[in-house]
Amino acid sequence: MGNYAIAIHGGAGRLMAGVFTPEQEKAYHEKLSEALQAGYIILTNSGTAVDAVEAAVRILEDSPLFNAGKGSVFNCEGQNEMDASIMNGKNLKAGAIAAVHTIRNPVACARAVMEKSPHVLLAGHGAEKFAAECGIEIVDPSYFYDEERYQQWFATKDMEGASWAGDTYITNQVNTEKKLGTVGCVALDSTGNLAAATSTGGVNNKKFGRVGDSPIIGAGCYADNKTCAVSCTGEGEYFIRQSTAYDIAALMEYKGFTVAQAATEAIKKIAQLGGEGGLIAIDNQGNISVPFNTSSMFRGWINTQGEKFTGIFR
Amino acid sequence: MGNYAIAIHGGAGRLMAGVFTPEQEKAYHEKLSEALQAGYIILTNSGTAVDAVEAAVRILEDSPLFNAGKGSVFNCEGQNEMDASIMNGKNLKAGAIAAVHTIRNPVACARAVMEKSPHVLLAGHGAEKFAAECGIEIVDPSYFYDEERYQQWFATKDMEGASWAGDTYITNQVNTEKKLGTVGCVALDSTGNLAAATSTGGVNNKKFGRVGDSPIIGAGCYADNKTCAVSCTGEGEYFIRQSTAYDIAALMEYKGFTVAQAATEAIKKIAQLGGEGGLIAIDNQGNISVPFNTSSMFRGWINTQGEKFTGIFR
Repeated sequence: MGNYAIAIHGGAGRLMAGVFTPEQEKAYHEKLSEALQAGYIILTNSGTAVDAVEAAVRILEDSPLFNAGKGSVFNCEGQNEMDASIMNGKNLKAGAIAAVHTIRNPVACARAVMEKSPHVLLAGHGAEKFAAECGIEIVDPSYFYDEERYQQWFATKDMEGASWAGDTYITNQVNTEKKLGTVGCVALDSTGNLAAATSTGGVNNKKFGRVGDSPIIGAGCYADNKTCAVSCTGEGEYFIRQSTAYDIAALMEYKGFTVAQAATEAIKKIAQLGGEGGLIAIDNQGNISVPFNTSSMFRGWINTQGEKFTGIFR
Repeated sequence: MGNYAIAIHGGAGRLMAGVFTPEQEKAYHEKLSEALQAGYIILTNSGTAVDAVEAAVRILEDSPLFNAGKGSVFNCEGQNEMDASIMNGKNLKAGAIAAVHTIRNPVACARAVMEKSPHVLLAGHGAEKFAAECGIEIVDPSYFYDEERYQQWFATKDMEGASWAGDTYITNQVNTEKKLGTVGCVALDSTGNLAAATSTGGVNNKKFGRVGDSPIIGAGCYADNKTCAVSCTGEGEYFIRQSTAYDIAALMEYKGFTVAQAATEAIKKIAQLGGEGGLIAIDNQGNISVPFNTSSMFRGWINTQGEKFTGIFR
């Protein structure tokens, strides 16, 4: 039995200390802690890294606090439109879904794509049809409806800049400050296997079927036992353009970087292109790195010593 | 004025010499030559690499000979469903579209995403709506209809293995032998800028909204002036799982590989996972590499010496 460890994120953003009441802040810490614990107990019981990352992400998806699953933001048509991905570092198998509206736990469907199909990425109604055939839980789109979020979206959807996700990220603070990004988990299990998973509701008020980095293997999610497992959050376009998740693996394998050096370098490259975000990465020894260039990133980890941390701000 | 050069592909596959009549073979060579020439004339006149790759791919898309645009295969619902991507190595800007049915030249729409939106990837109807707003040519889905291809699809769509793209690739030879893969182009222009573009009709009889590597920046398409431009073809899932197009850039930048070494290594890694395919790559000096592990790949290039080549088989 080797080391095992887990890290999660609930999205990078521009939150400043003081934005939440103490009760709200506590709720975030508690949910991050619950997700970590759900994954960690699996690892403790000799479960697989894939099981652990799915379990942790499911809890974040089921919470209205984060922009994924239940808490997903609205697209420009007032729908919740979700993406997710998962990767197994043992065999480089991967699964992802994009632009789905009726799947309660997108990460579970991504896993089904990985394990029950020869494909990696399924999109739209086809993905939902596949989910139904696999027995993945389908819900009415109203499951994702939240009155307060809807009113926020509705009040600002026609604002200048609100029609483009890229601008929205910056200008439409009412909606985005509290609802940026994505959730994700990376884990190392006791047999030395790595896994990563990422899930998102996308960018608030997104238009034209925009797909970010979350369902893109190599951009928002990657895992390879040789090196590391990675899940990203932030302005997805920048992460796609630099194949950020895979780049961290490449920097470790080809240049001999540590996971911390590689993860820090990747975020530096995002900033050089003008992008914002963060990521969580774990190597095959259980070393964890959680860099971000935003003012906040919901995050947490339990390291190989069993030490636990959750945080929101810098 | 520096060197300039261009390479194209029209899909890797399992064709064996003798499968075509001399007239058919001639038609392929002529169309590859026409596409090369269309890109090369732009480069000769000091045009940009982005213009050159778009021009070449448009010609391949407009031809019924290749599985992209006009020649796209049918999905399991008897529709033509296309993906495309483009990337500018000068600024790492990129654009892509997935699962569109009505865009005559998907590569042109991918370019509009790159240049006229803050996004990288648009999917489905949203992408088509964006195309219409940008003045991209929209056609009736019947434009892509081909009686002979439709009958081939219809006759074999319920065959064992035909419902899964991965199996189809292997078992459903009636449809796939002549219609594998994808088209693509990479170019270096006289100012030292690189670009890559990829376009596809996907896998014959594909199901569940399957998306391959063609619209995935980092998997089926990548360009960075620092290193190279790459376009891939083959069993897309393997290329996604290894971030193949970006991996070639990473091998060059991080390990000092030549473009030929990096491209060969990438195809070796595809084979190690059990995958088949090929790619075209060009570095920022105009060196070209076109490795494939299949029996055939429609391909061609005009190198920095102005020498021209087109080929189909090994």
